[in-house]
Amino acid sequence: VKKIIIGIDAMGGDFAPSEAVKGAVQLVQSNQELVPLLIGQKPAIEAELIACQVNPSDFQIVHAEEVIGMSEHPTKAISQKKNSGINIGYHLLAKGEIHAFIGAGNTGAMMVGALFSVKPIEGVMRPALTSILPKINGEFGLLVDVGANADCKPEVLNQFAVLGSLFYKTVYSANKTARVGLLNLGEEKEKGNALTLATYPLLENNDRIQFIGNVEGRDLFSDKADVVVCDGFTGNIVLKACESMYYHLMKRNIKDEYLDRFNFKHYGGTPILGVNAPVIIGHGISKADTFVKMFLLAGEVVKTNMIEKIKAAF
Amino acid sequence: VKKIIIGIDAMGGDFAPSEAVKGAVQLVQSNQELVPLLIGQKPAIEAELIACQVNPSDFQIVHAEEVIGMSEHPTKAISQKKNSGINIGYHLLAKGEIHAFIGAGNTGAMMVGALFSVKPIEGVMRPALTSILPKINGEFGLLVDVGANADCKPEVLNQFAVLGSLFYKTVYSANKTARVGLLNLGEEKEKGNALTLATYPLLENNDRIQFIGNVEGRDLFSDKADVVVCDGFTGNIVLKACESMYYHLMKRNIKDEYLDRFNFKHYGGTPILGVNAPVIIGHGISKADTFVKMFLLAGEVVKTNMIEKIKAAF
Repeated sequence: VKKIIIGIDAMGGDFAPSEAVKGAVQLVQSNQELVPLLIGQKPAIEAELIACQVNPSDFQIVHAEEVIGMSEHPTKAISQKKNSGINIGYHLLAKGEIHAFIGAGNTGAMMVGALFSVKPIEGVMRPALTSILPKINGEFGLLVDVGANADCKPEVLNQFAVLGSLFYKTVYSANKTARVGLLNLGEEKEKGNALTLATYPLLENNDRIQFIGNVEGRDLFSDKADVVVCDGFTGNIVLKACESMYYHLMKRNIKDEYLDRFNFKHYGGTPILGVNAPVIIGHGISKADTFVKMFLLAGEVVKTNMIEKIKAAF
Repeated sequence: VKKIIIGIDAMGGDFAPSEAVKGAVQLVQSNQELVPLLIGQKPAIEAELIACQVNPSDFQIVHAEEVIGMSEHPTKAISQKKNSGINIGYHLLAKGEIHAFIGAGNTGAMMVGALFSVKPIEGVMRPALTSILPKINGEFGLLVDVGANADCKPEVLNQFAVLGSLFYKTVYSANKTARVGLLNLGEEKEKGNALTLATYPLLENNDRIQFIGNVEGRDLFSDKADVVVCDGFTGNIVLKACESMYYHLMKRNIKDEYLDRFNFKHYGGTPILGVNAPVIIGHGISKADTFVKMFLLAGEVVKTNMIEKIKAAF
């Protein structure tokens, strides 16, 4: 079995390095194929490994002196903190010394780092972030973009449709083709804002995707589409609004199988779609079991050759 | 007691004229101040009144031969169906023969009819629609706009803030000043898309409102802001997404006081903010008790002189 080495920003996330390291330990105890490489402040990482009752010398650790905080300005932090775990991780990824890189730290810095180091795939205008849409029928949809690109041109949304479709088909649906919907305020072709009106014909004429037309906010959790594209402003707001509904209801002790599927922890982050190497960004409040899922998702992206498939499409 | 005459498009809504007429009957049985004036196909209205075991001659009815369907093109329908209930209602409203007009029919036609007949208040660039945001603390917020204006300029969002504040203060909060938030993908002033970045300084320098800065999707149900402004595209999508989460959870038989507050039926529609007379638009699936709430909301808008207050602000 070929080993897949997955770098992790061990200092990334609200409970770093503890939960990230615990996640790596849990991974190796249950998986022989994926090998974590821990990047961050070595003494802190070793202390956490010892706390987990494992031998630090059994783990690959790369020391990174600096840490990028959750609220630092992404571009400034990436430019200035050359010895941060995020920068060193991307350096290793660009050199091919790790097969994938995961982190639950500053999302903006993870994004900027990817654009600076492994870079967008040639032809991809704007890499995107996705989020899972829990469908009422038990399946999943994907929303693209959820915040990486606040303002988008129609051509960019058209690319999101291709990126999302390839991710869905390759990683989530066992090669079933994704039905793509355009998020809009009405179903009819002639409804929309300037952006969606201009995007609709591009999607309609894009033979690399299966476009099913406009979908409304109310269709996000139905089985109408598998991949829903929108600008990152809209995607970010609708995602956070639904997450907050979930959060408020969960705090009220509602136990429901469907409601629970809105808990991000089941999904283990999202790849940056459209860059030259596998990168998974996780939620800042991820705990160990969610880090395990991030490793597994990164492994899937590597094993399914998703990056090569995207490259071939652009 | 001065009587307030409220016209209702009796043929508007998915269960018309039955539920609209029942709502009018329920109103007069519980309220002496508000007088419904039923507009629509007289024979059908009279038959419903008889079915409600009341005397049709006790009700004011204005015959309207034509009916605008839920899926008709708004501008076309308003231009061509001069004898529709919506057109006749607005005609009566513009002449001052009714004090307010309510309807749960084609939302676009209700909106276009208002713009053509009672017209925007001088100085108001784009009248807006609002929706209730049920806050976790038991209070309400307002989202403006939720779909009337798909594309908005910064100056338009700035006006939404004034319109929403006046509505909130006058009708919902017993004169407590509204805290206004700008819906955005981050809290920091420098975050946003082109629209919100340009809108922020306008709101910051608008001394007719109490601006508290950006609010995120996750803040919609918290007590951070009372009035949240956004373009109608974003507002429509986030509203429908949250409504659909409510709907799916409600169908799963979750009984929860907070979740139940997402049921539109408690609120009785929304005024068109920024036109020269009181107009309330209701949800197509409204039943009789929701029509009663629409009458009551229209009565509040009349009694509190909301229109005059908005006129004075522009």
